[in-house]
Amino acid sequence: MPSTRTFPLNAWYAAAWGHEVGRREPLARTICGEPLVVWRRADQKVAVLEDACWHRRLPLSMGRLEGDDVVCRYHGLAFDGSGQCTRMPSQEKILRTACVRAFPAVERHRLVWVWPGDPALADPAKVPDLHWNDDPEWAGDGETLAAKCDYRLFIDNLMDLTHETFVHATSIGNPQEGRLVTSTRWMHDVEPPPFWRAQLGKPGKVDRWQIIRFEPPCTIVLDVGVAPAGTGAPQGDRSQGVNGRVVNTITPETAGTCLYFWTLMRNYRLRDQTLTTQLREANARIFLEDLAVVEAQQRMLEAHPERAMHGLNIDAGSARARRVIEELIAAETALRASA
Amino acid sequence: MPSTRTFPLNAWYAAAWGHEVGRREPLARTICGEPLVVWRRADQKVAVLEDACWHRRLPLSMGRLEGDDVVCRYHGLAFDGSGQCTRMPSQEKILRTACVRAFPAVERHRLVWVWPGDPALADPAKVPDLHWNDDPEWAGDGETLAAKCDYRLFIDNLMDLTHETFVHATSIGNPQEGRLVTSTRWMHDVEPPPFWRAQLGKPGKVDRWQIIRFEPPCTIVLDVGVAPAGTGAPQGDRSQGVNGRVVNTITPETAGTCLYFWTLMRNYRLRDQTLTTQLREANARIFLEDLAVVEAQQRMLEAHPERAMHGLNIDAGSARARRVIEELIAAETALRASA
Amino acid sequence: MPSTRTFPLNAWYAAAWGHEVGRREPLARTICGEPLVVWRRADQKVAVLEDACWHRRLPLSMGRLEGDDVVCRYHGLAFDGSGQCTRMPSQEKILRTACVRAFPAVERHRLVWVWPGDPALADPAKVPDLHWNDDPEWAGDGETLAAKCDYRLFIDNLMDLTHETFVHATSIGNPQEGRLVTSTRWMHDVEPPPFWRAQLGKPGKVDRWQIIRFEPPCTIVLDVGVAPAGTGAPQGDRSQGVNGRVVNTITPETAGTCLYFWTLMRNYRLRDQTLTTQLREANARIFLEDLAVVEAQQRMLEAHPERAMHGLNIDAGSARARRVIEELIAAETALRASA
Repeated sequence: MPSTRTFPLNAWYAAAWGHEVGRREPLARTICGEPLVVWRRADQKVAVLEDACWHRRLPLSMGRLEGDDVVCRYHGLAFDGSGQCTRMPSQEKILRTACVRAFPAVERHRLVWVWPGDPALADPAKVPDLHWNDDPEWAGDGETLAAKCDYRLFIDNLMDLTHETFVHATSIGNPQEGRLVTSTRWMHDVEPPPFWRAQLGKPGKVDRWQIIRFEPPCTIVLDVGVAPAGTGAPQGDRSQGVNGRVVNTITPETAGTCLYFWTLMRNYRLRDQTLTTQLREANARIFLEDLAVVEAQQRMLEAHPERAMHGLNIDAGSARARRVIEELIAAETALRASA
Repeated sequence: MPSTRTFPLNAWYAAAWGHEVGRREPLARTICGEPLVVWRRADQKVAVLEDACWHRRLPLSMGRLEGDDVVCRYHGLAFDGSGQCTRMPSQEKILRTACVRAFPAVERHRLVWVWPGDPALADPAKVPDLHWNDDPEWAGDGETLAAKCDYRLFIDNLMDLTHETFVHATSIGNPQEGRLVTSTRWMHDVEPPPFWRAQLGKPGKVDRWQIIRFEPPCTIVLDVGVAPAGTGAPQGDRSQGVNGRVVNTITPETAGTCLYFWTLMRNYRLRDQTLTTQLREANARIFLEDLAVVEAQQRMLEAHPERAMHGLNIDAGSARARRVIEELIAAETALRASA
Repeated sequence: MPSTRTFPLNAWYAAAWGHEVGRREPLARTICGEPLVVWRRADQKVAVLEDACWHRRLPLSMGRLEGDDVVCRYHGLAFDGSGQCTRMPSQEKILRTACVRAFPAVERHRLVWVWPGDPALADPAKVPDLHWNDDPEWAGDGETLAAKCDYRLFIDNLMDLTHETFVHATSIGNPQEGRLVTSTRWMHDVEPPPFWRAQLGKPGKVDRWQIIRFEPPCTIVLDVGVAPAGTGAPQGDRSQGVNGRVVNTITPETAGTCLYFWTLMRNYRLRDQTLTTQLREANARIFLEDLAVVEAQQRMLEAHPERAMHGLNIDAGSARARRVIEELIAAETALRASA
């Protein structure tokens, strides 16, 4: 029986920004179809449980925090971060069986990551490397986008920079074409587009790069920048140039919705908060254009699921990304079938 | 084949307050999945039909009343309270077969009750006893709550007074615990909570009671009150105390929605309309807190219907109530299978 | 296997008013479940394609027009009116297989007509005759109504003029009855209703007619008017009278939604724009009353699809219309089964 899941479960998914998770109120999130309650304990560790009380299935996120525990709003049952019930008012003693499923969680690079699959496989070393988010050599900010679409439509979108000219006709693109895979694209000795001209702050032609790194199942880092032509950037010396990272991770909430966490980081003018704000706001506008596209695709795919999308050369990157995702899902299915 | 119905059909269900049913306009209600049109005839009796014209199935509740009949807005067919067509414009004579299903209806204790099951079994003596609603020895008022949940979640909620401390942390409760069934709970010689202190208007400790009476499938009367400690209330003499009845009946509209009719009645300060209004408004606020809880439960149960709720000692009352409901449904199913 | 389709595909359906289709922006419409993009080429011909790019299925209606082609907003693929891809940025050459399904389209009588079925059968001679819409001997205007109902409920509604008295109690009707088929109804030597009295502008009794012409699957023209009694109208000489045509065509978008295009044309006071506006606005109000009726029927039919509507004599016309529609659908199904 083929799996119809569209996401692997054995993976780290971003659930929230670190700053969204506090010690005052529990936070509700959904990942891979699983409703979750997320909060922070006194040791600053993040706890994640299924968002339903063992007793009557009221979402625990409607309750309150007491010490390191979350307390159900209905009958006051309390659960610690391991999911064990620690208080059961009106009952003489706590039932051993009263526990809620706990999920492995790690906080790293400004994000809280949750592992919805087999906890035994949840290796924190596998959290995607998004170190730019809190590297002191980099500055920048980001936002979250709640989208009504299969998260893979954003993967397609990001793996393919050629759409830039068309979707973002009024924003970042200038006419260009190319074939992108999980790979590197250099434009040597070219006129920079207005945006990069301004960032660089120097006249003349540039060497420009766009390097896409896809980390399955749903993290993509774009390495973009320009350096004065002939100063050695293609050979590895970017010291004369300016460099940005568009850091993207798109968490499937359900088959048809996702949460898209992104930042726009840079390695220049690190203390210029005005620039940080300008870039974040400009990028947010661009991502709204993408949002309109992928949500419209989703509606069309739902209306006629039997009608296929087609691939062009420019889709080599997204095709490879989707294949990797499918392989991960198939491997999980096989694993459980043999277990 | 097991029945998946969540309510028996052979039962009296509250459809509306008496004051909602008039002689000017038909009223639309849904009970047990059945759309109904409700109106009042000249003899003050209430008529209830399926809310769909025999002819083209336009809801009769969109039409108007003429004499004792409801007239369809589309082609003017008229139906009397028995469901028989009494007028058929444009047709030479009325077709005998043109009739709409009629439902037994009784008005009692300020409510209009409808029997969605077998009319032969509709015994008015079986209407739940909610006499406090119009007993001159009692005063009070109530409201209707339209809820997006299985009506049984409200039964659970009412059968269990321990939730009071947690759901209503800011309103009526004070810390307490206990084991409640369809039964009586006495607190002897205790400090009354502020609400009851004020109602009693006397200093000192009290004997306090909470008695829950569940009448299947969906009526619950809470008998609550306090009397000065040692004045004989537990032994039956409540004459020194104050007594309230929270009268609740929750009608399933569909599997996932219900109409909750309640009053808050009291046997003291009968002519104090200000108190009546205050109590009604305070209670309405409390019920909105319950509403948030049960609707959240409903969403969670719909999202993962395969995941079970669990019972504690405090759920003995609601477990028994649900078992009685299931037995009623099973008996109906067996009855029809043998018919 | 019986077809559950409620509309034939081999038919001309109105997709839009001609004035809605321009050379600046593509227009999105849905006909018979098929999402369509509609635009006008330089030769004024209307082009209609499936509203989904061959490549990633983004709706082409989100794109822009360039010359005679529609250009996808995502990657800039362009398609001509035949559905052939004419531009494929980032690709060395255009793939021959890259094409989008095209639909035959004809513009006639102020409307754009689309044929969702077999293009080989799309004969422009079969477009319904609604010549009153642009005949210089007639004047008038109309509107579009988007309705949440099976289009056949409007057919029922229009085939049956007796409902007029009841649905439009406050608008056009006066008490009357009759038996209507796809046929003619004359009222000889009668008092005209106030509306027709005013239109005629002459005192005295009239001969009045209502002639319904149903052209399957979804076009109905009402020929209505009055002439001074005894001036020969029933015999064919309407020259002393006033004559109107209510021109209706109701396009199924999906099984449960439709687009209703109507005009109210007249053969008198042709240059009186005030009258044109008054009549259009009055008729729009009447059609809103019908809309409430048919949408309520739809809700009731969806709630209990197993419960049947019934027919009276007055439904002979609509029954015949529905039978013709069913025969058309059955013939199509048989045709494909044998193909």
